[in-house]
Amino acid sequence: MNNTAKFITFEGTEGVGKSTLIQNLAKHLTAQGIDVITTREPGGSPFAEELRSILLKNNAQMADESELLLMFAGRIDHLQNTILPALAQGKWVLCDRYIDSSMAYQGFGRGFGDEQAVQKVQMLIDNFVPKLPDITIWLDLPVVDGMIRAKKRGELDRFEQQDIEFFERIYQGYQFIHQQSPQRFKQVCADGSPDDVLQRVLKQLA
Amino acid sequence: MNNTAKFITFEGTEGVGKSTLIQNLAKHLTAQGIDVITTREPGGSPFAEELRSILLKNNAQMADESELLLMFAGRIDHLQNTILPALAQGKWVLCDRYIDSSMAYQGFGRGFGDEQAVQKVQMLIDNFVPKLPDITIWLDLPVVDGMIRAKKRGELDRFEQQDIEFFERIYQGYQFIHQQSPQRFKQVCADGSPDDVLQRVLKQLA
Ligand SMILES: Nc1ncnc2c1ncn2[C@@H]1O[C@H](COP(=O)(O)OP(=O)(O)OP(=O)(O)O)[C@@H](O)[C@H]1O
Ligand SMILES: Nc1ncnc2c1ncn2[C@@H]1O[C@H](COP(=O)(O)OP(=O)(O)OP(=O)(O)O)[C@@H](O)[C@H]1O
Ligand SMILES: [Mg+2]
Ligand SMILES: [Mg+2]
Repeated sequence: MNNTAKFITFEGTEGVGKSTLIQNLAKHLTAQGIDVITTREPGGSPFAEELRSILLKNNAQMADESELLLMFAGRIDHLQNTILPALAQGKWVLCDRYIDSSMAYQGFGRGFGDEQAVQKVQMLIDNFVPKLPDITIWLDLPVVDGMIRAKKRGELDRFEQQDIEFFERIYQGYQFIHQQSPQRFKQVCADGSPDDVLQRVLKQLA
Repeated sequence: MNNTAKFITFEGTEGVGKSTLIQNLAKHLTAQGIDVITTREPGGSPFAEELRSILLKNNAQMADESELLLMFAGRIDHLQNTILPALAQGKWVLCDRYIDSSMAYQGFGRGFGDEQAVQKVQMLIDNFVPKLPDITIWLDLPVVDGMIRAKKRGELDRFEQQDIEFFERIYQGYQFIHQQSPQRFKQVCADGSPDDVLQRVLKQLA
């Protein structure tokens, strides 16, 4: 694995094991003497975390496109204040969700993958996001299996409360992105133990 | 004046008399038996008002483009939940600030009117705003005169604390819009008494 600072993002439906993988990967990289930060979206900077609490609040009511724009408002601040400074210092950045979650959740989940919805998300990416990930790990697991894993946790947030069809559309969104950007967007089987998954991811990063 | 429900927005630098005019115009229209609602941006719907309090908070720190996207996030919700329903019921809508404030404040004030900044604002208008105003009243007053009027009020918000150059750029933004859309964007002299200004505006609406 070459040690040039990498910007790696992690995607997948609820409970597929993104957070678990990120912790394990960060440990592994740190043990190799690599400087790494972990961060997440929505959130990742003080202002974006403020927006996160609005976005995930259970009783929040907002237009679908407002949700989309809020995600990008947070992202730009996160990028400017957390991600870009870390990369500039030679640190690796492991980010839990990023642009592809906007495409999957807002473009496909809310927007049903309609051409117009997809184009709006793409337009925001093209015009407002100056830094794409070097590589994205898509943890691929059947939607229900992730939900079973996630059910072990506490109260559900505003997204987690959606029905199964919503998450099936998100899964289709990830398939769409994989077809569009196979080089960057790596499909990794998320079945098996956390260490199995880590080993598969290390192979992708090698 | 024909009585088809109109969507009228009001623009201008700080303290030029937008709020005063809107109250006077609403009174005038109501006296003529016209159903009218007054609203404002940022804000105008429960969710957008929540964003307003973030946007105007004195100590808020956010990337410039986050501010821009937040304005549009609120706008879409405001449109969907307040403006469009009122128009559908045949009510006139008088709105204190709208798309042109984004162009003037974010495009010119923050973005210095650079081609890229202007294009980003325009792109958001073109792609996310399904309803343009029927007519916009630009209350035109030298920046300092408005500031003198506004100084009579209390504590300054995050925008009002900016320096004079910021507001001069905003003024240039309004001039730019006037050149682009002279039919919709009416320049009205804001000098003189509130009633003088009201009479000038009524002529524009006739
Ligand atoms: N490979 C795995 N096998 C079995 N359980 C796992 C595996 N990876 C994670 N888990 C467990 O599944 C649950 C969800 O994992 P995790 O929180 O990492 O998922 P996530 O993708 O981050 O979820 P979310 O999208 O909700 O943040 C946790 O209880 C975690 O311990
Ligand atoms: N034509 C006028 N002549 C003199 N004073 C005025 C006139 N119109 C409004 N004012 C006063 O000037 C001050 C600013 O007016 P107003 O609040 O209506 O401006 P505004 O454009 O809404 O300001 P802001 O952009 O800060 O909301 C108020 O104290 C108001 O009473
Ligand atoms: Mg997680
Ligand atoms: Mg006012």
